[in-house]
Amino acid sequence: MSKLSDLGEFGLIDRLKGILDKPASDDLIVGIGDDAAVWRVGDEFVMATTDTMVEGVHFEVGRAPWADIGWKALATNVSDIGSMGGTPLFALVTLAVPPTMAVDDVELIYAGLSECAREYGVTIVGGDTVRAPEITITVALFGRAARRNDEPLLLLRDGARPGDIIAVTGTLGDSAAGLRRLKNNGPSEDPLVRRHLWPRPPISSGRIAVETGITCAIDVSDGLMQDIGHICERSTVGAVLHANDIPMSKELLDAFPDDALELACTGGEDYELVLVGDKDLLDAVASAMGLAQLTVIGEIVRDAANNLRLLDDTGKEITFDHPGWDAFR
Amino acid sequence: MSKLSDLGEFGLIDRLKGILDKPASDDLIVGIGDDAAVWRVGDEFVMATTDTMVEGVHFEVGRAPWADIGWKALATNVSDIGSMGGTPLFALVTLAVPPTMAVDDVELIYAGLSECAREYGVTIVGGDTVRAPEITITVALFGRAARRNDEPLLLLRDGARPGDIIAVTGTLGDSAAGLRRLKNNGPSEDPLVRRHLWPRPPISSGRIAVETGITCAIDVSDGLMQDIGHICERSTVGAVLHANDIPMSKELLDAFPDDALELACTGGEDYELVLVGDKDLLDAVASAMGLAQLTVIGEIVRDAANNLRLLDDTGKEITFDHPGWDAFR
Repeated sequence: MSKLSDLGEFGLIDRLKGILDKPASDDLIVGIGDDAAVWRVGDEFVMATTDTMVEGVHFEVGRAPWADIGWKALATNVSDIGSMGGTPLFALVTLAVPPTMAVDDVELIYAGLSECAREYGVTIVGGDTVRAPEITITVALFGRAARRNDEPLLLLRDGARPGDIIAVTGTLGDSAAGLRRLKNNGPSEDPLVRRHLWPRPPISSGRIAVETGITCAIDVSDGLMQDIGHICERSTVGAVLHANDIPMSKELLDAFPDDALELACTGGEDYELVLVGDKDLLDAVASAMGLAQLTVIGEIVRDAANNLRLLDDTGKEITFDHPGWDAFR
Repeated sequence: MSKLSDLGEFGLIDRLKGILDKPASDDLIVGIGDDAAVWRVGDEFVMATTDTMVEGVHFEVGRAPWADIGWKALATNVSDIGSMGGTPLFALVTLAVPPTMAVDDVELIYAGLSECAREYGVTIVGGDTVRAPEITITVALFGRAARRNDEPLLLLRDGARPGDIIAVTGTLGDSAAGLRRLKNNGPSEDPLVRRHLWPRPPISSGRIAVETGITCAIDVSDGLMQDIGHICERSTVGAVLHANDIPMSKELLDAFPDDALELACTGGEDYELVLVGDKDLLDAVASAMGLAQLTVIGEIVRDAANNLRLLDDTGKEITFDHPGWDAFR
């Protein structure tokens, strides 16, 4: 019998989609396969997503302050709603913890969750608390989609067309570099470490993009190349990225000059926003967001095999051993 | 530093409520502390709840078929929506599993989830898949509240008033008896075991109750006495239950004649519905639901200390060592 580690996370998701029935409701707009689900409620459109952090997999006890773990557990979900162009509103928090855990430490996790909730205008409205051998924090987050008249405005993975431009907010690779620092030196106020522990998804950029008319985006969670790969697959297109244009911080380039590009392209957890669309629309988004917030990194091409290629300035392809995160590999 | 095992689940929830900010949105109707959260979306009212099952805590691998674990993971959430009078609609499923798990077994879990979804008209619209040392299944479920004009119709824990009658659907204790059988003899088609593994929350009863005008209910998840204790605490009332009136199945009484009452009063996981309200209203609910579906078991009394007492037919109080489930004790 094949194991999850053979099939991988995305193979599993494909198999599970096949088991589930057709939607029982006509109100469903977006189901499995994007950053968040979307359905109609009266004249409005509700978004929902969920994301989990498991001790020993997504974080290590003692390596990050408890409050940072709480912040990140909610921020990753905020990113999913923001990357669809929506506004996060209400969260359910499930905390699975050992009974021997100190109450004060649990309260610190909640203080971090609460700080992230305040920052993004989210209200925590419930959840579940259960006993477990390891700490697991699961957040389910609900939001509201932007809309125009009776239609939702959404940033979807399947909205890319040949000729579209690919742009990204902020800088990439800082989080992966911060994780490397954290593993080597423990917690610190190093800006790279802060980027890893305290991500700030740019949800206002998602709203600006969707209201400007952009219809395709994804957040950088698993790794830039893998995340854009999801867009290629869902949109049945290919993409070309230009290594020289990938935005990287001075901190990253100073800290890991030899690995900076690989960290930026495959590291993930930057929770920046990849936007795909017409050049004029992206220019309009860039000027609405403010200068230097959006960097063009490539373009969508016609390619039935959904190939994504990263090119150096001579046109030669650059490849990496691991394109990004897979839960089971 | 005090540990969760000292504070207990409900002490922890009280502490965490204190950390969180006031709601950021005027649209929130019900926050932390009931079976589900409720908020306004346009003219409608959305409900959301989440419930987790952890290997070694809520189930054991090999003791129950995989599909049964999937069914129950969704059914417990369906019960939370139903016990507020709502209709379940959309679910997110988070599966934390070891990479060594067989793909076929994960598919069986989803087959059970899918069967429960079909039974209750739920569509699974997304989720998360992560690596973890033990299997954990977390479902977040969204529903729609009943409404009349511009107001939601809800069954709440804080709606009990002195003089109200307490009634319950179905029979109690079967699930706990089934768990005992399962531990002793392994999986079987024994009806008690089926009641434990394959709960069927009576959500149509919740809808009938809320539309009839009942405003107070809870589902029997942690144990009858503890669950009614939540109503007493939230409503600042006491309650008297009559042991002779607790509905128990012939199967339970035959299987565990000496412990039947304790299993019925403290066992939990029956996912039946406790309804509290005016006698005439409960009579109307009973006749709408069909004969013998609703049993009167006690009444709400004025009691500032929120005392809940179970009396035998001579008026003598019956007590048990453990009133019900606590995640951390």
